[in-house]
Amino acid sequence: MSDRPKRILVIGGSAAGPKAAARARRMDPRAEVTIIQKSPDLSMASCGYPYYVGGVFDDRNQFLCTPTGVVRDPRFFMNTKGIEARTRTEALEIDRERKVVLCRDLEQGTDSEVPYDKLVLATGARPVMPPVPGTELKGITTLQSMEDADYLRRVRDEGTIRNAVVVGGGLIGVETCEALELAGIHITVVEMLPQILMFLDWELAKLLENHMKAKGAHVITENPVSAFLGENGTLTGVKLANGTELPCELAVVAAGVRPNVDLARAAGLDIGEAGGISVDPSMRTSDPDIYAAGDCVEIPNLLTGKKVHAPYGDLANLQGRVIGTNITDAGEAVFPGTIQTGVCKVFDYTAGATGLSERHARAAGFDVVSVVHAEPDKPGFMGAALVVIKMVAERGSGRLLGVQCVGPGDVSKRIATAAMALHGGLTVDDLTVADLPYAPPFSPAVDNLIACAHTLQNKMAGFMDGISCREVKEKVDRGDEAFILDTRGPDEYELMRLGIGEVLIPLGALRGRMDELPADKDHEIICFCKISLRGYEAARLLQAHGWTKVKVMEGGVMAWPFAREK
Amino acid sequence: MSDRPKRILVIGGSAAGPKAAARARRMDPRAEVTIIQKSPDLSMASCGYPYYVGGVFDDRNQFLCTPTGVVRDPRFFMNTKGIEARTRTEALEIDRERKVVLCRDLEQGTDSEVPYDKLVLATGARPVMPPVPGTELKGITTLQSMEDADYLRRVRDEGTIRNAVVVGGGLIGVETCEALELAGIHITVVEMLPQILMFLDWELAKLLENHMKAKGAHVITENPVSAFLGENGTLTGVKLANGTELPCELAVVAAGVRPNVDLARAAGLDIGEAGGISVDPSMRTSDPDIYAAGDCVEIPNLLTGKKVHAPYGDLANLQGRVIGTNITDAGEAVFPGTIQTGVCKVFDYTAGATGLSERHARAAGFDVVSVVHAEPDKPGFMGAALVVIKMVAERGSGRLLGVQCVGPGDVSKRIATAAMALHGGLTVDDLTVADLPYAPPFSPAVDNLIACAHTLQNKMAGFMDGISCREVKEKVDRGDEAFILDTRGPDEYELMRLGIGEVLIPLGALRGRMDELPADKDHEIICFCKISLRGYEAARLLQAHGWTKVKVMEGGVMAWPFAREK
Repeated sequence: MSDRPKRILVIGGSAAGPKAAARARRMDPRAEVTIIQKSPDLSMASCGYPYYVGGVFDDRNQFLCTPTGVVRDPRFFMNTKGIEARTRTEALEIDRERKVVLCRDLEQGTDSEVPYDKLVLATGARPVMPPVPGTELKGITTLQSMEDADYLRRVRDEGTIRNAVVVGGGLIGVETCEALELAGIHITVVEMLPQILMFLDWELAKLLENHMKAKGAHVITENPVSAFLGENGTLTGVKLANGTELPCELAVVAAGVRPNVDLARAAGLDIGEAGGISVDPSMRTSDPDIYAAGDCVEIPNLLTGKKVHAPYGDLANLQGRVIGTNITDAGEAVFPGTIQTGVCKVFDYTAGATGLSERHARAAGFDVVSVVHAEPDKPGFMGAALVVIKMVAERGSGRLLGVQCVGPGDVSKRIATAAMALHGGLTVDDLTVADLPYAPPFSPAVDNLIACAHTLQNKMAGFMDGISCREVKEKVDRGDEAFILDTRGPDEYELMRLGIGEVLIPLGALRGRMDELPADKDHEIICFCKISLRGYEAARLLQAHGWTKVKVMEGGVMAWPFAREK
Repeated sequence: MSDRPKRILVIGGSAAGPKAAARARRMDPRAEVTIIQKSPDLSMASCGYPYYVGGVFDDRNQFLCTPTGVVRDPRFFMNTKGIEARTRTEALEIDRERKVVLCRDLEQGTDSEVPYDKLVLATGARPVMPPVPGTELKGITTLQSMEDADYLRRVRDEGTIRNAVVVGGGLIGVETCEALELAGIHITVVEMLPQILMFLDWELAKLLENHMKAKGAHVITENPVSAFLGENGTLTGVKLANGTELPCELAVVAAGVRPNVDLARAAGLDIGEAGGISVDPSMRTSDPDIYAAGDCVEIPNLLTGKKVHAPYGDLANLQGRVIGTNITDAGEAVFPGTIQTGVCKVFDYTAGATGLSERHARAAGFDVVSVVHAEPDKPGFMGAALVVIKMVAERGSGRLLGVQCVGPGDVSKRIATAAMALHGGLTVDDLTVADLPYAPPFSPAVDNLIACAHTLQNKMAGFMDGISCREVKEKVDRGDEAFILDTRGPDEYELMRLGIGEVLIPLGALRGRMDELPADKDHEIICFCKISLRGYEAARLLQAHGWTKVKVMEGGVMAWPFAREK
């Protein structure tokens, strides 16, 4: 190899691309680093679009600025990083033999070849449009680009639209729902699957759905869009598979994204089972001089070993940094994979997950044990807010497989903590004695995550026979004869009850009122309270008195996702 | 062994005791469980005292209540848990031969023997009083008991006290400082050591001290109390070792606690090197039928292996649960030890730490590498707040040894996350590619903890030569001739500067202004910016241009703990 500077070419200027470029330039200051970017903007903080649309802030430049307010335009990249960034430039074709990329200047309409020694693909992902009629109508958009964000922000500011439909109840869908609802637009979220937010199990997703409805949004699940309806080329409504027509002037499609692998595929690079560009742990593609990162690649799920498409901005940055190291001989960096950690804010609730949901874990072949735990996130005197946690572990080994969390309380801390526990390969037993930071402004004396591990440990050791709210509801609907025991206080019962034929015997009175329970000691009894701590206490007591089929309804009233009385 | 119920006796009714009792009762519903408690109250949430004193809430019963508002009195323990709790009862002596405890009813003045099969010691800790004259004066208190909290709350409500001294700048000391300052009392915190909050290294503790001062509190370090001054038996002031006299009507002593091991020692149980009752990982003392937990025991620090006294309410609960399992043959539970995780809120700042500080790690014999990293805790457009992190790792292996964090931002999440990383035995490299939850309301795209790991990794790999703010200040004070380069923008510089002879060359202009740098390529150059990200970029550039001694001032202006100009 000659002594001329290394030529590093990066295709894509959003997250992974600029990160790889900047890291490479710092590691090899002699390198000639060029970024090719189709759109006019660079380093957009695209995860912030919903907050701009929702009016959390007003200056769109904040997407494009450094923390000190400098716009990350080509001049900034050249002056502060010594990187040439060509915006409005499209990469048309990779010639791997000659190691050049054919690029088109979209302003001038001229083509040119850009040579490389190392090429980085950060071509991102494309929104999936439902394969139904009418997608070309005016009034249908996604929220993937700066242009989309600008458009929806204008919609908000003009205030002329009354009804909108969000197609897709994933992360972007629910965030967009909040943004538009805050803009005074009446929103319906339409999801083809049986629940929103597929990274959660059904019972936690349902709690979030209930909250969205309480905030005024409509949510329709298990009902795909069958057509966009219009007049004179303009959207007038959305039709669902069951025939429902939702009149609206705006539809935001948030039905997921697919890796944009066109360039890579055309160049003959390996594409993987999940549809993304195949990379090894150094983020190298099947061509040793071409690397790829961000939304265009697939990476291993560290729990299942299977390749997944994980289009998250944080992972794009981490992968970009790994590439910046590896293409400059600054060391051998590795990106081992993802545990698919995610979080989103939806109105006053936060929902997050890390690792595998129970559904995912079962699908991946794990023998699973799980529990739902509901509890305030601080002592009551500090102004606590509820968080509901679901913890999933491998039966036998007790290895943690995943944690989900939903509620108005501090969800993001519990998910971050759980994510690190997964990275460490910890077990449920490990979590039961974890040394987490405690002070009343931040958590209960036993943090919710640890308390949840306690409950799951009890369940795994056979001290608690848990039953989910959903199973209880199904039993009741089937007419099963389980005795349902509410162990709360009379005042709590007065305030609100489940209305499923439950019998109130407060825990403190239970020792003296056992004659009110089924005489048949093999009759199923399901205990609960507000969060099922007293329910568990009651269950232990009844087991000690000979009842053989005593269950605890996990999470109690606070995790009950169905209608209540009063 | 006969078939009679197992007699479980618990001495101490605050945290560890009731937890052990309740768990034991649930695991063995036939057991006869008795709690002996000297004070009139049970299960007090004692970590909440400062917030009651400070007026965060007004109902003292909230300390004693379940989340649903039921007071945890002896009747509650009997009715809901089947546990006999004897308050105002003191355990005088353990007869291990006969397996009885001599107890005194403090109301009646009568003594009786209580037999046990398994005994649990949860005798807590006692406040340390400075060995100086005047400690008997009226107006001197601690904040350890319900009575203390009641007293200080009356002080607040009556509003007659103008000046108070808090003796001790530890966790309780700084929390008490905030509580009394909020009550309109003028506070001086006096600490004998060179810094407050010894779980932090000096530079982070100093940032917190600066914040306390900005909030109106006085803080005096490295100056022990030499006497409490008084007239007619009432406190009038506090005298310090350097002769300073601080007039005050109230002094709160928060100079730490010592394990209360009197009963255990008198009974001949092993007391350990850290002064606490010796226990094995099952929390069993040197007597196989006696267990101990909470503030009276010593436990292993999991990073050093050495026994430590870790008087935290959360650990007390976890240990109590382990005992509840082990004394009832419900399994073999283990409490492996502590990583000494702690957090506290002080005015608008939070300070926390987990694992070892650099000072502790060095004292324990580790070859240490560390870094300070400052950064907002979210994207700017979401209303970010600063957090300053210090990360400590073992040189060579890269194993994480500890993390400290201070600032107005979300510190508690970073400490909880770091604590779990320590439990998992993760390395700095592991942290650089961790999959944490990201969404703009909760964190930057690369979480502060990961960004800090990136910086430490750069330092360990030799890409960054870090220097602490303190070392820079010492250099400047010594008259060292280092060239100090501020790489921020002119507007930032106008707003505020360090005033240590720094030269402003904005990063974006640096490539064109290298002639303004020392011509001698071996001259030391120290680069910084607001958070030293641009400082790092500048350093890499200068290194590439041949300067050999280029350092980055870690954390930049935001971590600078000394006076600034403007």
